[in-house]
Amino acid sequence: MTSTAHDYDLIVLGGGSGGLAAAFRAAQHGKKVAMLEPGELGGTCVNVGCVPKKAMWLAADLAGRIGLARAMGFDVPLRPALSWKELVVHRQGYIENIHVSYRKRLDETGVVRVPRRGRLVDAHTVECSDGVRLSGEHILLATGAHPQRPDIPGAELGLVSDDFFNLCDAPAQVAIVGGGYIAVELAGLLQALGSRVTLLVRGGRLLDRFDGELAAQLADNLCHQGVRIQFDYRLRELQRDDDGQHVRVLGHDGPLDSVFDTVFFAIGRRGNSTDIGLEQVGVAVGDRGEVIVDEWQDTSVPSIHAVGDIGGKVGLTPVAIAAARHLMDRLFGGKPDAKMDYENVPSVVFSHPPLGMVGLGEEEARARYGEVRTYHSNFRPMLQALADGTQRSMFKLVCVGAEERVVGVHLLGEAADEILQGFAVAVKMGATKAHFDDTVAIHPTSSEEIVLMRG
Amino acid sequence: MTSTAHDYDLIVLGGGSGGLAAAFRAAQHGKKVAMLEPGELGGTCVNVGCVPKKAMWLAADLAGRIGLARAMGFDVPLRPALSWKELVVHRQGYIENIHVSYRKRLDETGVVRVPRRGRLVDAHTVECSDGVRLSGEHILLATGAHPQRPDIPGAELGLVSDDFFNLCDAPAQVAIVGGGYIAVELAGLLQALGSRVTLLVRGGRLLDRFDGELAAQLADNLCHQGVRIQFDYRLRELQRDDDGQHVRVLGHDGPLDSVFDTVFFAIGRRGNSTDIGLEQVGVAVGDRGEVIVDEWQDTSVPSIHAVGDIGGKVGLTPVAIAAARHLMDRLFGGKPDAKMDYENVPSVVFSHPPLGMVGLGEEEARARYGEVRTYHSNFRPMLQALADGTQRSMFKLVCVGAEERVVGVHLLGEAADEILQGFAVAVKMGATKAHFDDTVAIHPTSSEEIVLMRG
Repeated sequence: MTSTAHDYDLIVLGGGSGGLAAAFRAAQHGKKVAMLEPGELGGTCVNVGCVPKKAMWLAADLAGRIGLARAMGFDVPLRPALSWKELVVHRQGYIENIHVSYRKRLDETGVVRVPRRGRLVDAHTVECSDGVRLSGEHILLATGAHPQRPDIPGAELGLVSDDFFNLCDAPAQVAIVGGGYIAVELAGLLQALGSRVTLLVRGGRLLDRFDGELAAQLADNLCHQGVRIQFDYRLRELQRDDDGQHVRVLGHDGPLDSVFDTVFFAIGRRGNSTDIGLEQVGVAVGDRGEVIVDEWQDTSVPSIHAVGDIGGKVGLTPVAIAAARHLMDRLFGGKPDAKMDYENVPSVVFSHPPLGMVGLGEEEARARYGEVRTYHSNFRPMLQALADGTQRSMFKLVCVGAEERVVGVHLLGEAADEILQGFAVAVKMGATKAHFDDTVAIHPTSSEEIVLMRG
Repeated sequence: MTSTAHDYDLIVLGGGSGGLAAAFRAAQHGKKVAMLEPGELGGTCVNVGCVPKKAMWLAADLAGRIGLARAMGFDVPLRPALSWKELVVHRQGYIENIHVSYRKRLDETGVVRVPRRGRLVDAHTVECSDGVRLSGEHILLATGAHPQRPDIPGAELGLVSDDFFNLCDAPAQVAIVGGGYIAVELAGLLQALGSRVTLLVRGGRLLDRFDGELAAQLADNLCHQGVRIQFDYRLRELQRDDDGQHVRVLGHDGPLDSVFDTVFFAIGRRGNSTDIGLEQVGVAVGDRGEVIVDEWQDTSVPSIHAVGDIGGKVGLTPVAIAAARHLMDRLFGGKPDAKMDYENVPSVVFSHPPLGMVGLGEEEARARYGEVRTYHSNFRPMLQALADGTQRSMFKLVCVGAEERVVGVHLLGEAADEILQGFAVAVKMGATKAHFDDTVAIHPTSSEEIVLMRG
């Protein structure tokens, strides 16, 4: 391919997962790429999202297993002390290794790295924060999103999920405002790692996008772990407590009966779409700060594209990566039809136990297909049974049509995070219940329950 | 359906997994069933196989995780003491619960239970050990198999896998003779739970039926865990040591340089086909004591069938269960074409980490298809990386043809036991590499590596 009249074939704004995937792929296609990376490489996922969250989840998981080990005959404390500082050192070391590997790979692929913020000047030009202007045939917006605070008095007294990763010890009393996956994950982690957590949920259930039955079971699990959940809670205000240290939480129906050391907001995220010149060049932006993109990841300006959280669609790292790769293959790889398929994207909430889903929930499937048949499995995994634990697994299949096509797989239980991936392949291939039935079980596992469900 | 001239529609010899599955299914089809169950309900799997093995594996897994927890900042001992007695109490309690549930279910379904050994008298008649004769339209042989001892001097000084479950503490020095999955599992368990294990393998590799590359990595893992492996070892004799307590192991190339507290044979299993009258009624039996069955689970006598380990095919509980159900559906359920499909049966070795496979190994695929393309992923799972552990995961796909159909999935690593099931569904459906590529990854997990492999 020949070079264009522009400095670069592609200018990427943002060094997160989507931006990196695009840069690597475009470079693979022989293109000249510049990447503006004002923050840490890897963006939210690597620095204040998936990766450090999973590290804390693994620690919380170990804490739980040590309790089970004690019940099975090991001479270990029921609730062993944990040095958060040591854990954080391990976690940050892991993240630093990812940074090193990204830097190495960027250098190897010849991507030009500009450690500056960028601002669109026109449809093909970005001005860096030091005044230098770069021109590109294509510009990719991949600046991510940031956690929001509510518009209430005292909002500045609350923290957001990013701040969780600055903690060096478990706050004693924590309130978390929200009912989505970040709220649920934070609640589980903090409770397992030493805090006493209260979850304040505006609606009547957790995790709107997940199957209602499993979400209800997950709420029960959280309560069983000691998390206090207040549904239908309408937050009014935060106040600094008289002691100057604590935060008092006030709702529309009166205050809670206690104050907290720390209050987290996990009420949603907003695309990082301000101060990057979108208005100036006419890129359309939605109500939640999201850049509006079509199915091809194109914005309202033909040479400007967007992937990842700034687009406000499915806020998952692998989706950002896949969308970026498809886009690059379409623009530079001679695949004019390449685009991301947003159907049947699997996702997992790292609760204890984890909750995973691919496809449609029962309610959604009913709305779309009318007649729906579900299959359930509800059991206690062997480790729980051996250790006299109470945690159960709840698996659910949602099937439609005479051939019982499996349109939803919902897994709440030990190892659900790892079990789901293969079933996501099968669902995407159009698996029917008969395909599940015809596969021999792997005994004894939790995963076998999914192919052993009977009506 | 009408009743026959016989006492029962079906007489089942054996109360193991296959026999139970057949009895339940036949009863579901409204048939009169008698089951002769001379031993514990659940057979090998529940009593001296999968179930107690997995319980011990879970304990070994916990021991390993406690070490990782210490490395990550938890205040726990590196090698905590374990009360085997307490562990065994939990394990046996779990097994007793299974017995209770089987007994309950048998009672509910109206199966006649005869706690006696049975012996075939003719093609439709079984004589119980108390002399009572029962006649059945069909007879199902499901008596299982038993571990073999080699034909060498001193063989009586060695134990077999059944005996492992009588231990109440870890023997200090253990030799295990064998290189199959039982030998590998026993070695891993004993080493993790306190023994010093030597594995004596006749051939030059472990696990003949698994992919060679992963089997070699598993051997490395065992060595890293402290297991000593001697390949190409030809056992000659066991001798009682001078102290009267220990056992001396002698090979054809001289003795080992140490004696052992305990020697286990894990050299294969033999069908329980003697003393049940097979010769008398003309049921053909093979060299390894296996009852010869065709693809319909029929023996050489039309009214006599066999499932499970006595048939000597794939010795896996879920296979015995599936074969039993298909057979009952064919005989009694109006499905004349129902039969077990022995292709693409997934199986897992509970090593540390576990090894799983479905489909063909690379060597097998090359022999069958000629051109083969493989994909590899070799990585350190996050928990290992965080805890400065060394254990790596090795995943491998074997693909054939222009469309790159995935004919083999091979997983050695943390959670492989749970990851495999969904991929087994996909492989059975005829998945291609493109189907894997098109599925969005679940981040951060081990399983995502399987859909992220690049050539």
